[in-house]
Amino acid sequence: MGVPLLSDVPPSHPRYASLLTREKLVEGVERGITGLNGLIAQGRGEALDYLLGEVTTPPAEEAERAAAALLLLAERPVLSVNGNAAALVPREMVDLARKIGAPLEVNIFYRTEERVRRIADHLRSFGAEEVFGETPDASVPGLDHARGKASRGGIFDADVVFVPLEDGDRCEALVRMGKRVVTVDLNPLSRTARTSTVTIVDNVVRALPNLISLVGEMGGQREAELREIVASYDNRAVLRRSVEAMVSHLSRQFSTFEE
Amino acid sequence: MGVPLLSDVPPSHPRYASLLTREKLVEGVERGITGLNGLIAQGRGEALDYLLGEVTTPPAEEAERAAAALLLLAERPVLSVNGNAAALVPREMVDLARKIGAPLEVNIFYRTEERVRRIADHLRSFGAEEVFGETPDASVPGLDHARGKASRGGIFDADVVFVPLEDGDRCEALVRMGKRVVTVDLNPLSRTARTSTVTIVDNVVRALPNLISLVGEMGGQREAELREIVASYDNRAVLRRSVEAMVSHLSRQFSTFEE
Repeated sequence: MGVPLLSDVPPSHPRYASLLTREKLVEGVERGITGLNGLIAQGRGEALDYLLGEVTTPPAEEAERAAAALLLLAERPVLSVNGNAAALVPREMVDLARKIGAPLEVNIFYRTEERVRRIADHLRSFGAEEVFGETPDASVPGLDHARGKASRGGIFDADVVFVPLEDGDRCEALVRMGKRVVTVDLNPLSRTARTSTVTIVDNVVRALPNLISLVGEMGGQREAELREIVASYDNRAVLRRSVEAMVSHLSRQFSTFEE
Repeated sequence: MGVPLLSDVPPSHPRYASLLTREKLVEGVERGITGLNGLIAQGRGEALDYLLGEVTTPPAEEAERAAAALLLLAERPVLSVNGNAAALVPREMVDLARKIGAPLEVNIFYRTEERVRRIADHLRSFGAEEVFGETPDASVPGLDHARGKASRGGIFDADVVFVPLEDGDRCEALVRMGKRVVTVDLNPLSRTARTSTVTIVDNVVRALPNLISLVGEMGGQREAELREIVASYDNRAVLRRSVEAMVSHLSRQFSTFEE
């Protein structure tokens, strides 16, 4: 569909990681998992990640640690999966779900039953045990009908929801329901970033492996220690430091180019 | 194809312009004019434009003025059209071509004969008189076969090429041929931006109408005046000011959010 395969590109290529990510997403479109809008969202992410230097910054690491603590402390955690997450990190979403004993829920912005089913099947092909979303039986208040669809036992009843790459309206609606919301969003100024309890300003392909390690590492910590990590976490400060990281990377890049 | 129409969105919506742009591009994909990669490129542009505040900045205005002067002074100007330009600004490309007496040439990154033909037809449907690209008979040196295809009487023989949204390799190859290259690129740090003679760091949907007015306005100026505009233009300085505009918009945005 107009995008070449990576077979010709050596892993040493400076843009290998971003080309690989792009290829996975195009594959997602071809498999009916990712919507066309997901490609545009991917492009937005690419540009912002480029501004971050394509690394997990110290504020992102701090957010990932707080996210791991929240997920470990949660009584009814749920991991939400959209078309981009399904294309980019299906194995990792399933792995994280298993490690924290959480179900997954398919939750896409432009909902079609067909696409929901394909994503659920895709996750099951990676070993997912409990996947909600195909037969929603509840509504998130404040969203219109198609956007608000949710499942009892899944997102509707969760106390902590991990919603990477989420839309601002839905993120706000979940927060209004009293849930703690963990998101991954490369735009530290977005409504999603500003509304969430913990915002990981990182590429989802780096954030998920990091979260999986952290959950493994921190799984043995005492509850009081985890609570302390959550209590001392300041999302606003983390977002500010993320913006600062972008500004300083941009300035640094520019000065190399001036030489 | 998973993207809603704008019919429901009022023009007063804060993101109306960017939603409209997005819709045009998705339409381009559906018509076989724009490739999937074009959607990702659009997303990158959206994020960068957001960082610019979605306005034509003073350095972009200066670049547009220099671009208009170069195009007016050119002996054999050519306007290159790719899948995104064809979807977003077909009428404007045709209009600009007519105003400066230049042919158009279809020049796409992931070339398929079918897509080239569709883009050429699309441009002709807006009244384009001379469209090269369907039967390339020359090669830009230093590019591989498919990427290097060009037409005599078109890009191959041009002294000034307007290549909005161009790839870095091809931009460099055109400059190496001794051409003066005018581009539109929202990333002031990209290889295309750094290589071109004049880089307009602006959204193509704003840059084209601006160029059309400027060409109209400046068309009556004496050649010596136009030469002076070109001679005093410093692309490096314009790029630096564009980066500064992004940094300052980003910081400003962040401080509003902190209140």
